[in-house]
Amino acid sequence: MTEPRRITLLTDFGARDSYVGELKGVIASRAPAAMIDDVAHELPPGDLQAAAWTLRGYWRTYPEHTVHVVVVDPGVGGERRAIAARLDGRFIVAPDNGVITLALAAAVSTDIVEIRNPEILPAVRSATFHGRDLFVPAAAALATGAALEALGPRLDDPVTIVWPQPSRAGRRVDGEAVHVDGFGSLISNIPADWCPAGGIVRVDDRLIGPIRTTYADALVGDLVAVIGSAETLEVAVRDGSAARELDAARGARIRVEPAEVRADE
Amino acid sequence: MTEPRRITLLTDFGARDSYVGELKGVIASRAPAAMIDDVAHELPPGDLQAAAWTLRGYWRTYPEHTVHVVVVDPGVGGERRAIAARLDGRFIVAPDNGVITLALAAAVSTDIVEIRNPEILPAVRSATFHGRDLFVPAAAALATGAALEALGPRLDDPVTIVWPQPSRAGRRVDGEAVHVDGFGSLISNIPADWCPAGGIVRVDDRLIGPIRTTYADALVGDLVAVIGSAETLEVAVRDGSAARELDAARGARIRVEPAEVRADE
Amino acid sequence: MTEPRRITLLTDFGARDSYVGELKGVIASRAPAAMIDDVAHELPPGDLQAAAWTLRGYWRTYPEHTVHVVVVDPGVGGERRAIAARLDGRFIVAPDNGVITLALAAAVSTDIVEIRNPEILPAVRSATFHGRDLFVPAAAALATGAALEALGPRLDDPVTIVWPQPSRAGRRVDGEAVHVDGFGSLISNIPADWCPAGGIVRVDDRLIGPIRTTYADALVGDLVAVIGSAETLEVAVRDGSAARELDAARGARIRVEPAEVRADE
Repeated sequence: MTEPRRITLLTDFGARDSYVGELKGVIASRAPAAMIDDVAHELPPGDLQAAAWTLRGYWRTYPEHTVHVVVVDPGVGGERRAIAARLDGRFIVAPDNGVITLALAAAVSTDIVEIRNPEILPAVRSATFHGRDLFVPAAAALATGAALEALGPRLDDPVTIVWPQPSRAGRRVDGEAVHVDGFGSLISNIPADWCPAGGIVRVDDRLIGPIRTTYADALVGDLVAVIGSAETLEVAVRDGSAARELDAARGARIRVEPAEVRADE
Repeated sequence: MTEPRRITLLTDFGARDSYVGELKGVIASRAPAAMIDDVAHELPPGDLQAAAWTLRGYWRTYPEHTVHVVVVDPGVGGERRAIAARLDGRFIVAPDNGVITLALAAAVSTDIVEIRNPEILPAVRSATFHGRDLFVPAAAALATGAALEALGPRLDDPVTIVWPQPSRAGRRVDGEAVHVDGFGSLISNIPADWCPAGGIVRVDDRLIGPIRTTYADALVGDLVAVIGSAETLEVAVRDGSAARELDAARGARIRVEPAEVRADE
Repeated sequence: MTEPRRITLLTDFGARDSYVGELKGVIASRAPAAMIDDVAHELPPGDLQAAAWTLRGYWRTYPEHTVHVVVVDPGVGGERRAIAARLDGRFIVAPDNGVITLALAAAVSTDIVEIRNPEILPAVRSATFHGRDLFVPAAAALATGAALEALGPRLDDPVTIVWPQPSRAGRRVDGEAVHVDGFGSLISNIPADWCPAGGIVRVDDRLIGPIRTTYADALVGDLVAVIGSAETLEVAVRDGSAARELDAARGARIRVEPAEVRADE
């Protein structure tokens, strides 16, 4: 290991408590040369789908050897396992509750262990804050050069979330909003390559219009469908919020049809 | 000093202004090798009790030589002093308004000085932003190896907050919520070792039930009393907010009684 | 370049999405030794005036060679250019939409280029996330030693925001609130050196009182006018919010008059 590794943090801890500081303090104590990157700390509390989607966005923009810690952990203290995964050379340390679902699906090379080795964990652990007492110590071990396999035994059945899948019927594509981002954009599960050029988009039967190249192709305040940065179809309002404009939320139905069948649909 | 030191920041500055950037820029200018860790910037404005509680949570998870900066400073520009403390080998730089109360109470070894040495401070200082013009320059001095005593004269009477104390009457323990965290959990001042096994908890006379080991011992949506990560009794709702469920806030009365006296109480 | 450089981030991305993590991952991949400082991520979406004011506050507190990235980009994907500027030795990478207006006005030495060199940019770029695919790669190039001129051709006509200017009529000074900060303070465009000692301040015709030295010169809950940390006149409520107390927002008229003409005004 020639460079200090980075440890990233994704949590639902918010920005008005000591919890993020407690994680960082343990990292500073156990992996003092590691750089720490906050990804986001305002995930909706306990929202595993939001955590899985968010992790999908950034985990592979980081270089190999990065250690990503995800602490969205509604079942803390119960029977759920703790896992560490090596996906395409990056590490992910998280509760075994499905937050790795989408990263795992996107990875070519995957190895997962259950974090159990008492030697890398504090002797005393709280029953309510595994972020501080279990996940971050495991991450610090990886960031200081421990092998994945040193954390615990191989695990072949990680918990995954049943993720909503888009479908095709004839020339129609039906999907749904799997995420609503902070701008209020509805981000669908319809992959870019399922979207016909000029396809017409509807949200819950409301016509949005043809797929455009970018937000700037719409007038300010207008609804627009584009291929978003996640490489899926999204519906936005230029300089506004599609969720508010459409009164829509995660789960909203999103449909794409070829331009020519729109009239008589 | 062989490693670059870390400087942590705890403020009520929020995340939509230049203030955090101004602090970090001064650090980057005066202690360029220091790593900077954000703890939290959304503390309720001017809330000294929240700042003191939050600092209590993380200050000692960091290694020795860390410099913790706390800028919650409703009296900025007035007569209040500025202090730097060395508590068990960690430094804390803050206004002398009581935010160090709980860290100080927990420390074995304590030294405090008043920050007054003009040589470590900018020649021109604003009267409204001591975070930038006084606390962070002092922190940068410590992070680059200055001795605590170089910052100013010893100070023996730091301002402290009168902190609510729990009490015992017979077999009852009475305390209160001293913090409500971002999850809506009511965190009390009742220490873990005052809590009898199986003790029955009430909040403002509402029965919560016996002390459990962890959140997962409750059903989703149910109230549960546990020993929290701060080593005190807390009342939570599994996957929800106890503050909302109980319509309770900081100051709510929390009582623990032995299980056997509950029925006829 | 003897020290790792710092890259700062100012965005309107919020703290509940992957976008900030995507920026940092690209930095970690392209400039692994760079330290990354979050300035703020909760700017009002697409608010160029807020971005310009915020940047004004911190850009020069950082040392030379720092790379400041600003991603507030309502026109992403449209015709607006991308720029990199060297202002008094610091770099700013941003959309060419006016967010650099105030930093540019304050700088003595200015060089600006349009970011166009395909060699420093990813081969595939999204049309909706230039922060990740254009600005941060350019910033990483600068942070690893690329010359400004390597990013693209010189640009002499950056877009600037028409910024509200204060005016003087006789002994009166008229300005306006150009920013409302997270504490609810109304920050004006009236420079400190236009403010007569003891001058009397009004906001939208409501009398605030004479200019004081600092917040602590007012009673808790009272309105107070002071010279703020930005070296302009501001109106605050001690331990409260002037915006709420006055029901005022950005654009509120702020007037200063000499003390002696107040009575018969």
